[in-house]
Amino acid sequence: MSEFDKPLEECGIIGVFAPNEDVARMAFFGLYALQHRGQEAAGIAVSDGRTMRLHKEVGLVAQVFHPEHLAQLEGHYAIGHTRYSTTGSSNRRNAQPFMVETFHGPLAVAHNGNLVNASELRQQVLQRGVGLSSSSDSEVMTMMLAGAEGDTWEERIQNTMPYWHGAYSLVILTRSQVFAVRDPWGFRPLSVGRLPSGGHAAASETGALRTLGCDEIREVKPGEIVTLSNTVLRFRQGLPPQPNLARCIFEHIYFSRPDSFWDGLRVHQVRQRLGEELAREAPTEADVVVPVPDSSLPAAIGYARASGIPYNEGFTKNRYIARTFIQPTDSLRKQGIALKFNALEENLRGQRVIMIDDSIVRGNTAGPLVKLVRGAGAREVHVRITCPPIAHPCYMGVDMGTYDEMIAHKHTLDEIRDYIGADSLHFLSVEGMMRALGRREGYCNACFSGVYPIEIDRAHVKTGFEKAIAG
Amino acid sequence: MSEFDKPLEECGIIGVFAPNEDVARMAFFGLYALQHRGQEAAGIAVSDGRTMRLHKEVGLVAQVFHPEHLAQLEGHYAIGHTRYSTTGSSNRRNAQPFMVETFHGPLAVAHNGNLVNASELRQQVLQRGVGLSSSSDSEVMTMMLAGAEGDTWEERIQNTMPYWHGAYSLVILTRSQVFAVRDPWGFRPLSVGRLPSGGHAAASETGALRTLGCDEIREVKPGEIVTLSNTVLRFRQGLPPQPNLARCIFEHIYFSRPDSFWDGLRVHQVRQRLGEELAREAPTEADVVVPVPDSSLPAAIGYARASGIPYNEGFTKNRYIARTFIQPTDSLRKQGIALKFNALEENLRGQRVIMIDDSIVRGNTAGPLVKLVRGAGAREVHVRITCPPIAHPCYMGVDMGTYDEMIAHKHTLDEIRDYIGADSLHFLSVEGMMRALGRREGYCNACFSGVYPIEIDRAHVKTGFEKAIAG
Amino acid sequence: MSEFDKPLEECGIIGVFAPNEDVARMAFFGLYALQHRGQEAAGIAVSDGRTMRLHKEVGLVAQVFHPEHLAQLEGHYAIGHTRYSTTGSSNRRNAQPFMVETFHGPLAVAHNGNLVNASELRQQVLQRGVGLSSSSDSEVMTMMLAGAEGDTWEERIQNTMPYWHGAYSLVILTRSQVFAVRDPWGFRPLSVGRLPSGGHAAASETGALRTLGCDEIREVKPGEIVTLSNTVLRFRQGLPPQPNLARCIFEHIYFSRPDSFWDGLRVHQVRQRLGEELAREAPTEADVVVPVPDSSLPAAIGYARASGIPYNEGFTKNRYIARTFIQPTDSLRKQGIALKFNALEENLRGQRVIMIDDSIVRGNTAGPLVKLVRGAGAREVHVRITCPPIAHPCYMGVDMGTYDEMIAHKHTLDEIRDYIGADSLHFLSVEGMMRALGRREGYCNACFSGVYPIEIDRAHVKTGFEKAIAG
Amino acid sequence: MSEFDKPLEECGIIGVFAPNEDVARMAFFGLYALQHRGQEAAGIAVSDGRTMRLHKEVGLVAQVFHPEHLAQLEGHYAIGHTRYSTTGSSNRRNAQPFMVETFHGPLAVAHNGNLVNASELRQQVLQRGVGLSSSSDSEVMTMMLAGAEGDTWEERIQNTMPYWHGAYSLVILTRSQVFAVRDPWGFRPLSVGRLPSGGHAAASETGALRTLGCDEIREVKPGEIVTLSNTVLRFRQGLPPQPNLARCIFEHIYFSRPDSFWDGLRVHQVRQRLGEELAREAPTEADVVVPVPDSSLPAAIGYARASGIPYNEGFTKNRYIARTFIQPTDSLRKQGIALKFNALEENLRGQRVIMIDDSIVRGNTAGPLVKLVRGAGAREVHVRITCPPIAHPCYMGVDMGTYDEMIAHKHTLDEIRDYIGADSLHFLSVEGMMRALGRREGYCNACFSGVYPIEIDRAHVKTGFEKAIAG
Repeated sequence: MSEFDKPLEECGIIGVFAPNEDVARMAFFGLYALQHRGQEAAGIAVSDGRTMRLHKEVGLVAQVFHPEHLAQLEGHYAIGHTRYSTTGSSNRRNAQPFMVETFHGPLAVAHNGNLVNASELRQQVLQRGVGLSSSSDSEVMTMMLAGAEGDTWEERIQNTMPYWHGAYSLVILTRSQVFAVRDPWGFRPLSVGRLPSGGHAAASETGALRTLGCDEIREVKPGEIVTLSNTVLRFRQGLPPQPNLARCIFEHIYFSRPDSFWDGLRVHQVRQRLGEELAREAPTEADVVVPVPDSSLPAAIGYARASGIPYNEGFTKNRYIARTFIQPTDSLRKQGIALKFNALEENLRGQRVIMIDDSIVRGNTAGPLVKLVRGAGAREVHVRITCPPIAHPCYMGVDMGTYDEMIAHKHTLDEIRDYIGADSLHFLSVEGMMRALGRREGYCNACFSGVYPIEIDRAHVKTGFEKAIAG
Repeated sequence: MSEFDKPLEECGIIGVFAPNEDVARMAFFGLYALQHRGQEAAGIAVSDGRTMRLHKEVGLVAQVFHPEHLAQLEGHYAIGHTRYSTTGSSNRRNAQPFMVETFHGPLAVAHNGNLVNASELRQQVLQRGVGLSSSSDSEVMTMMLAGAEGDTWEERIQNTMPYWHGAYSLVILTRSQVFAVRDPWGFRPLSVGRLPSGGHAAASETGALRTLGCDEIREVKPGEIVTLSNTVLRFRQGLPPQPNLARCIFEHIYFSRPDSFWDGLRVHQVRQRLGEELAREAPTEADVVVPVPDSSLPAAIGYARASGIPYNEGFTKNRYIARTFIQPTDSLRKQGIALKFNALEENLRGQRVIMIDDSIVRGNTAGPLVKLVRGAGAREVHVRITCPPIAHPCYMGVDMGTYDEMIAHKHTLDEIRDYIGADSLHFLSVEGMMRALGRREGYCNACFSGVYPIEIDRAHVKTGFEKAIAG
Repeated sequence: MSEFDKPLEECGIIGVFAPNEDVARMAFFGLYALQHRGQEAAGIAVSDGRTMRLHKEVGLVAQVFHPEHLAQLEGHYAIGHTRYSTTGSSNRRNAQPFMVETFHGPLAVAHNGNLVNASELRQQVLQRGVGLSSSSDSEVMTMMLAGAEGDTWEERIQNTMPYWHGAYSLVILTRSQVFAVRDPWGFRPLSVGRLPSGGHAAASETGALRTLGCDEIREVKPGEIVTLSNTVLRFRQGLPPQPNLARCIFEHIYFSRPDSFWDGLRVHQVRQRLGEELAREAPTEADVVVPVPDSSLPAAIGYARASGIPYNEGFTKNRYIARTFIQPTDSLRKQGIALKFNALEENLRGQRVIMIDDSIVRGNTAGPLVKLVRGAGAREVHVRITCPPIAHPCYMGVDMGTYDEMIAHKHTLDEIRDYIGADSLHFLSVEGMMRALGRREGYCNACFSGVYPIEIDRAHVKTGFEKAIAG
Repeated sequence: MSEFDKPLEECGIIGVFAPNEDVARMAFFGLYALQHRGQEAAGIAVSDGRTMRLHKEVGLVAQVFHPEHLAQLEGHYAIGHTRYSTTGSSNRRNAQPFMVETFHGPLAVAHNGNLVNASELRQQVLQRGVGLSSSSDSEVMTMMLAGAEGDTWEERIQNTMPYWHGAYSLVILTRSQVFAVRDPWGFRPLSVGRLPSGGHAAASETGALRTLGCDEIREVKPGEIVTLSNTVLRFRQGLPPQPNLARCIFEHIYFSRPDSFWDGLRVHQVRQRLGEELAREAPTEADVVVPVPDSSLPAAIGYARASGIPYNEGFTKNRYIARTFIQPTDSLRKQGIALKFNALEENLRGQRVIMIDDSIVRGNTAGPLVKLVRGAGAREVHVRITCPPIAHPCYMGVDMGTYDEMIAHKHTLDEIRDYIGADSLHFLSVEGMMRALGRREGYCNACFSGVYPIEIDRAHVKTGFEKAIAG
C-alpha cells in the first residue's frame, strides 16, 4: 500500500522509575501511547538493581509484548523505545533499546533523533577496536558511553555529550538509575513527570506521561541530564543550551499527539492557530472547510472559526492501520488513495471546498484527494497547507525524502497547484507559522528554509558508507 | 484494558466474483475496509471453479493474511468474513467462513447476524445425525444448506430461508458461484456493486465496495438472493420482504463507517442530523460542543451547527487499537479511561461544555469522561446522547449486554445523570431519532422499546444450552 | 530431502481414562512414544465430563503441544492421534482427532487405518445432507457415529461397525467415556492396559502403554469394543471376528517399535527370527553382517547368529529427523543418501558384506547403499531383505506407492539385483516370513501376494474423486 | 524430562567457501550433520563479498532455518554454529555466530570450546570501553579480534591467539575469507576438506564434511590457522603446538558421531576397542552383552567379540528427541527412565547380562537401567563402563557437572555398585582406555585424573561473576 505523503518520525522513547509498581507494564502503556511515533519495532529494558533484561522485536507494541514477556522483565527501572516504520523488510538488529554490559555494569540506551556526525563517530568507535552489531548511530552512542571517562554515569554522559552533534533525546538505563537526556539544541521533545504511585517517568510526549497518570510534568531542558528518582528529580546541565535553540517545528505541525504539551504550547491549540493564520493569509470564498484526517482536524476547525466558513468532514479514512505487506491488485492500485480515503459526497457536492492538509512532501497524495473531492461533485477545491513548502531534507532524525523527491524543491507554487489540480493552493508562510506558535525563534525551520542550525557535512551524510552487515 | 461502553457488532462480510483479478487480494482489501465490524478473527474462502480453499485465523485482517496465504487462494470466486472482538480468549473454531464439502460440491458461508431460533435449528440438525464443530449458528445454517432440497444452489438457498428466523446477511460461495442473501426483515446491511475490472462484489457496507472501486452500488433487498456474475447480476426474491422491515438502527448510530450508504441514507449525514435533532430537543446554554471520538464527530458537528455553539475537540483518543492482553497495573487501572482518552484542557477550561456521545450501555465510560472534562476545568458538563436509553437486549446479532448490565434498565434518567456526574443529561427521543433518519418505520428499535420485530423465545435464547465442545 | 524407500504408516492412536491424573499429559507422553508412526500432525481431545476440548496442529508431538495447551485440556478422559508424514505441504484440516458436537453430546474420534469403501460411505454421508470439512475417511466415520441408531454410544458404535469395510483401530471419546475399537479383520494393532495410578489406557502399541507404566496389557480383539474405566474394563464383541484374520505383517517387519508386543509376539524377537530365517534360506560366505539402521538391527543380529558370521555396524545414520523443507543444492543432491548415511570404512574395507534391510519398495535407496559399501572398499555386497518383494498396493492404511512405482511389480529378481548393483540379492520367502512369526495364517500378505483379505473396488479406490475442498 | 546422565558438549561449527554453490544451504546441511553437538540454538552467517548477513535463533537446525531465511543469506562465504542444550530457558543472546562490523570490515565468529581465562579477558575488554551483549566468551573473542593489531585478518588472528588460554576451535568469517583456527592444545576437533564442486569446508567432525561430499579431509593442526579458498588451502602456524597436546578424549568415548575420524582414528573403531579392552580387564561369565543405546553400541559389539559372549539389544529407546518442556505427571515421574527406555524382556529373561554404558556422571541413570534389566527377569546384571570414573570438572568446554554432583568424586567403586544395584561394576582403566586408542599421550584426561593440561584459576572459574545482563 503506497505510503502517505508525510514526513516520517524516527521514534518514541519512555523511561520509568517506579519503586512501587510493575515497571515493565508502565513502560508498555507508555509506549502504547507513543505508538504513532514508530510502528516498525518496539523494545523495553528493565533492571532489578542487579541484572538487566531486554525484550525487543519487530512489530507494533501490542504485538511485540505478550504477558509472558513482561512477566520476565522484573524490576523498578525501565526504558522503552518504539521505532518508525520503513517500507520494505523490517530489521531486528536495529530495534532499540541497545543493551550491553560495560565495565561499569549494565547499560541500555533508547534514542530519538539523529547525529549529523554519526559517520565520523562510527569510524572512531570502530577504530578503537569495537565491533558494532547494527547500522544504528544509537549503538555507536551506547558504545561511546561504555568507553567514557568519569566516576559516575552522570559524569560519563556529560563527558560524552560534547562529541554528539545533532539531535538526541535519550533515555538511559543503568543498574539502578534511569536518565533522560536532551541535546543542547532541543531538537526532539522530551519531558518528565511524577508518577501517582511514587517515582517518575520520562517520555517523548506529555500525552504518554498523562496516560501514566503523571503530574508535575516539565520539559527536559536543552542540554540537560535528568536523573529519575523516587523523591525529587536531580537536574544537571550536561551542556549549556545552544544560543540558537532548534526545536523541530514538525512536532507541532504533524508528529505529536494533539494533547501533548511542548515549549509551553498545547499542540492542539497550535494547530488550531495554524488554521486561523492560514485563513488570514489566504482567505477564499467557499462553502465548507474540510480536513484531511486525522492530523489536520484542529487546523480545519481553526480555519473555519477564523473564516466563518462552516466546518465539516469531507473524508472517511480507514482507521485500522496495522501494516500489511499485501500488494494491491492492478485494479486496486488504480483506485490509489481510495484504499485509504472515501469521500463524503453529501458534504462536498455542489460546494466550494477548502481542503486543509498539514504538509506536502512528494505531492502524490494531494492530487488524488483533490480529484476525490471533485468526483464527489465539489464546484471548487482550494487547498491550504498548514506549513510552508518542504524543500530541504532533514538530517536530524526525520525522513523527509531527498531533494529529488520533494515536489517543492523542483516546482513553483503554480506548477504544484496545477499538478494537484486545485483551483487554488496556499502554503502557510514561515511568518504565519511562527505567529501561530507565538514564537520568533527557537525552532528549526531547515526543511523550509535550508538554513540548518548545525553544520552538516553533506558529502558524508548523503553518501553514507557501505553497509558491512545486515540483519 | 476495560472495554468501551459500546454495543458490539457481530461481523463484516465480503463476496467477490472477479473474472480478471486476483480475487483473494480483492477480498482482503474488502475485509480490511470492514475491520471495524470485527477484530477477533478473519477468513477468506476462494474457489477456482474446481477446488475451494480457505484460510482463517484469530487476529486482525492484516495479521491473519500474509502474501503466502493469499498466493495459495487462487481463483475468481471468493467470500470473506471478519469477526467481532470478544473479551477473553479467542476461538479459532468459531472463525468464519465455514467451508464444507457437500453432496452438491464445495460450499462456504459467511454470516452477519443472529438467528433467534438458532437453538431449535441446532437441535434439528443434530437430530438428523450431523456433527457440529463449533457453537456458531452459522455452521448450523451451512449444514442446513448442505442438506437442503433443490436442483440448484439458488433453489436450495430459497428452500432453506423459511426456516431461518432472525438476522442474516450472508455471502455464500459454491464451486463457481457467489451469492449475497439477506433476511426478509433486512436486519443487517448488505450491498452489491460492479467492479471496475469486471465482475461484482457484495459487502456489509458500501464503504468497502467503494474501496474496491465499485460503482452501480445497490442494496440487497430484504429477502433477496443475488447471484454475482461477470455481466449482469441475477436477482431472485427468496422470501417476500416482511411487512414490518426491521433494519438495525445502530448501524446509523454507531456501527457503520460514516461513508457508508444504507437505506438511501449516508451515515455521516444521518449522524449530523442526529446531532441537530438533539440540539432541538435539548438546547442548553454552553460555550463549546465536543464529541467523544471518533464515532460522535458528525453528531457533534450537527449539534454545533443547529445550536450555533462552537464545535471543538475536547479529547485525544489513542488511535492504535491492536488488541493487547496486557493488564494495567493497579495504579494504571485507577487512571481508568485515561489510558484511552486525554483531555484537551485549553479547549475545555472555564467552558460550559456539551459532550456528545452516541450511546450509553453500562454507563461505565460516561462518568469518567465527565470527570475528565471537569478535571480540565470545565464549568459545566452537559451530556447529550444521540439515541434513546438502551434498555433491552438484542437477539439479532448485537451484543448489548444483559438486562442486569444495562444502566437504563434499572435506573431513571436523573439517577443516571447523577451517576455519571453530569449537570444535565439528555437521550435523543425515538421520535427525534426517526426524524433524523427521515423515516417513520422500517427500523428495529427493540433495544430502546423492547418491542421485537420477531417473536423471541426468551427461555431458549437466554438459557442457552450446555456447551458441549470448546475450541 | 528424498524420502527413504519405506512404506508409510498412517497413524498412531492413544486413549486414556485416568481418574487421578492429568490426563492430557498422559496422552502427550503416550503420543510421544508413538511419534514414529506419524510425524505430520498431532492432536489431543480431552473431556472433563461436561465440555470437550481439542488441540491439534501440524508438527511433531513436542512442537504441537506447549505447557499452555495441555493446561487448557482439563479432564480425565482423553484420546490422541499422531499422523504420518506426507511429502509436500502439510494440512491442518486432516489432522485428528475429529471432534464434533452430536445430538448425544460431544464426540471425538482418532483413527488408524483405511476403509476400502470410504468413497461409497462418503457419498452416502454427503447424500443425507452432511457437510464434510476434510478429505479424511475418519471424518466420515465420525459423522456416521453422530447419526447412528442406538441408546448408548456402545450401541451406536456397534450399529455402525457393519458399514465399515477395511482397516480401523479407533479410540473414541465421548463426554464421559473412552472406547477402543478394532475392525473384525484385526488389520492394525491396538492394545489396552491398566495404569499404575488407576484407570486404563489404549494405544496402537504396547511400547506406548509401557511408557505410561501400564501392566495387565492385552490386545483389543478383532471386532471388539472396549470401554475404558476406573476399575474393570468392559468388553463387547461389536462384530464377530472375520474367519480370515488379516493383521498387517508390516508392523512386525518395519512399523512397530521393537519393544512392542503383538499377537503374542515381541517385535524384536520376530525381527531376529526373520534374520535367522533369511540366513537359512539364503546362506552366503561372507565376513560381516551389517544392518541398514535403525530398523534392521535385530534382523542383522539374527542373521549373524544363525550364520555364525560376525555382526557389525556398517553405516552411521543422521539421527536427527525433524523434517526440513530445505532442498539440497545440486552438488548435495548428487551425494544422494550421503546426506543421511555415511559408511564406516574400517568395518567394510576388504570384506565380503551381507547387508540386511527390511524392505525394498521403489528401489531407490538400496542401490546407493550398495555403492556406499563398495566405495568403502568392500569386496562383495550381498543384499538380504527380511520380507518378500512388495508388488501390490495396500488399501488398508499403508502408503506402499502405486504399481508403477514398485520395482518388484515390473522387474525380476535378477533385474533388481543388477539395478541395485549387488553381488547377490535375496528376499525372504512368504513361508520363511511366516515361520519367523510362528504363524501359518491370520496375517494380511496382500502387498506380497496380491490376495486381498477383503474385496477391493479398485475402480473406486484408484480413481479417487475430485478434491472439492483443500486445507 | 530428566536429562540423561551424560557430559554435555558445547557446540558444533562449520565453515564453507563454495564459489559455485549456494553456500547457505551447504552450511545448513553441514550443521544438520552436527546437530548431535548442540540442540539449543543454531545460526549461519554468510558474506557475499560486500555485505554480511546472519540468521540465528533458538531451536533445532531444521526449526531455525526455513527456505526464506536461507534465500536471504546470499554469498559464497559462510560459517555456522549449533549450540548445546541447557536445561531451563533458552537464550537468544548467547546464540552464535557473533557478527559485528569492525574497522576492517564485517566479522563473524563461531566457537567450540571454553577459555579458562575468559573472566580476565572479559574484564580487559570491558575496561577498554567495549560494551558486550552476551555472557559468552565467544563474544569477548570476537571483540578482541575487532581490536587486534595487524594488516590482515590472518595477522590479527595470529596476534590474538597468545591471549586465549583454553579450548577453541573456531571458524571465522570476514568479507571474503573463511578461516578455521584451533588452539595449540588441540582440545576440540576441527577438520577441513575439499568440496566436490570447488572450494573447501571446515567442520567440527569429518562426518559433516563427508555429508557435504568432501574428500582430501585433514585435521586442522593444533595452533594452526587455515584459510579456505577456491584452489589450495593456505596453512599458517598461528602458535606452535603445545608440547603436551590435550585432545578431549570424550570425543571418542561419547561426543563424536561414530563415522567421524580424528587423530588418525575412526571413532567407531575406537569404541569397539574400548569394549574389547573392557572385556579383557573385567571378564565375567555371562549370557548376553547389551548396549545402552545408542552411543554404546560399538563398545558392546567389541566386548561381545572379545569375550565370545553373544551380543544382543536389551533396550528400546525413544528415538524422537525434539525437546519438550512438558513436565511428566507424578505417576509418570515414578516411571523414571521408562519414559525413554523400555526393556526387551525376551532378550534378558533368565540371562546373566553384561550392560555396556559409556559413562557415569551423576549416577542417576545407571541404577534405573539395572532395575529395568532385573525387572525383565535377568538373573545377574554386570555393568561395564567404557571409561574411568569421572571425578573432576572440565573447564575446557564440556559440562560435566560440579564436584558435588559427581558420584565418583564422593563414593568408592563398591558404593557406586551398590547404589546402582549391579552385581558387579567395572570402569575401564585409564591405561585400557589409552590402549584402545593406541596412544600414550596427547589427550586430556583431566576429568578422570584431575591433572589439567593448563593452569586453571579455580577461584575465578568457579565463582563466575555477577550476571549483569540477561536475554
